[in-house]
Amino acid sequence: MKRLCVHTITTKPWSLEECLTEYPLQGIGGITVWRNALDGRPLAESARMLRESGLAVVSLCRGGFFPGTDSRLREKALDDNRLAIEQAHAIGAPSVVLVCGAVPGQSLDVSRGQIAEGIAAVLPDAVAAGVRLLIEPLHPMYADDRSAINTLRQANEICDRLGSPEGLGIALDVYHVWWDPELREMIEVTAGAGRLDAFHLCDWRTPTVDLLNDRGLMGEGCIPLGQLTQWVEMAGFRGFREVEIFSHRWWGTDQREFLKRIVASYRAVIAESEAAV
Amino acid sequence: MKRLCVHTITTKPWSLEECLTEYPLQGIGGITVWRNALDGRPLAESARMLRESGLAVVSLCRGGFFPGTDSRLREKALDDNRLAIEQAHAIGAPSVVLVCGAVPGQSLDVSRGQIAEGIAAVLPDAVAAGVRLLIEPLHPMYADDRSAINTLRQANEICDRLGSPEGLGIALDVYHVWWDPELREMIEVTAGAGRLDAFHLCDWRTPTVDLLNDRGLMGEGCIPLGQLTQWVEMAGFRGFREVEIFSHRWWGTDQREFLKRIVASYRAVIAESEAAV
Repeated sequence: MKRLCVHTITTKPWSLEECLTEYPLQGIGGITVWRNALDGRPLAESARMLRESGLAVVSLCRGGFFPGTDSRLREKALDDNRLAIEQAHAIGAPSVVLVCGAVPGQSLDVSRGQIAEGIAAVLPDAVAAGVRLLIEPLHPMYADDRSAINTLRQANEICDRLGSPEGLGIALDVYHVWWDPELREMIEVTAGAGRLDAFHLCDWRTPTVDLLNDRGLMGEGCIPLGQLTQWVEMAGFRGFREVEIFSHRWWGTDQREFLKRIVASYRAVIAESEAAV
Repeated sequence: MKRLCVHTITTKPWSLEECLTEYPLQGIGGITVWRNALDGRPLAESARMLRESGLAVVSLCRGGFFPGTDSRLREKALDDNRLAIEQAHAIGAPSVVLVCGAVPGQSLDVSRGQIAEGIAAVLPDAVAAGVRLLIEPLHPMYADDRSAINTLRQANEICDRLGSPEGLGIALDVYHVWWDPELREMIEVTAGAGRLDAFHLCDWRTPTVDLLNDRGLMGEGCIPLGQLTQWVEMAGFRGFREVEIFSHRWWGTDQREFLKRIVASYRAVIAESEAAV
């Protein structure tokens, strides 16, 4: 349970105050903070609240969106990433998750180049702040406008291309990569390179009725979560297991009941991962 | 224009009779027949209608769906594939497109094994009928229940695993593979192995509001269609360019107007492919 982390977006109807009250009541050990949860109060106040909650601050979500059709837009993205790094530093988050970005109609290769440039530009700020930037490969169904980085292999290639800098890691979200025939091998490669920084859990529902906000609670879908959790563990991962569920369906229910179901299904995944061969 | 083929499903509101009347009026050269278009009349009658239309019969869609949790279900799938092969032979279609199948919650590796077994089981029937089976890698967003084969690399691996049999090829649909960082290389590999049998066109809309039936007309989305058409051509492909659009939006419009727009946007793609560097 100490390794269970919940993303504030998972219980989107709740304020940060409610998250910080409710998560510990269920024995949850960590919290990943989405930036909208910081809105409306001084950053130092959010930082104090987080500190006093006793929860570990696992990550800040999210930076990225580096590609742009003109340099002014790309410069603006860099500024926003620098702000995210400052925010992460202020609230004691050791990392910022990057949704790398894509521009509909712009060549994916061009976007990939802009992503590498953008990361390189803000990396010094991240290192200075003691914050690690985590590339999160996104499902190929988001290649149009959310990320031109769609596999663990590509995320690793960017790290390699930038010289494997200390401030750069990778976030693995099962929703995005579960289908990948290279998954097990790439988990080992990622962890072996010291880059497997984050592990996000949810499930893939059949049918999925919304490309963004129809993620399943663990157990509601087809992802072999016990097996993937085991693979990640066997590769040496010892960080938090972060529950990140975007779901209109679940957001419409009682969030305390939902949180209890998250805890129960998390326990089931862990039990399964320990039993898996 | 002689190389433009339209799938009957693209103009779903139309009967086969209407397709056979309307497609030639627009100068379209070929037709790929979805099996539902054969319902309700003797197969020989459909074959006669197709012959008399003057259209080239490019493919039959579709066979596949080999995986199943018990052997009885898998046997039933084989029977259905044998029927598809018979139908293709009867209407003079040189190939059957395979949507290979997947079972939610069943390991993708297990499904991949069952797919290879299923193809191997019906291949002799296909060869005897002079019909080629075409593996179509499907977008990873369909890995839950439609296909455990999600990249050109995987499709080629199955062909290799079965010993590159004469009766087995690959269908490339831009919608499924446009995001793949290995795309250009894998087009060359596929064509080089003599397996690039079919090329399907449509577009990816932003936002996509339905995982199945929100495909775009060429030009409505972000896929670099001119470039992909050129890559395929440069790899040696000389077959039909098949327009396959599942779209509630377009099905709700006047189909003759839609067909005219298909022809115009197809011409634009070809012009772009010839201009592309």
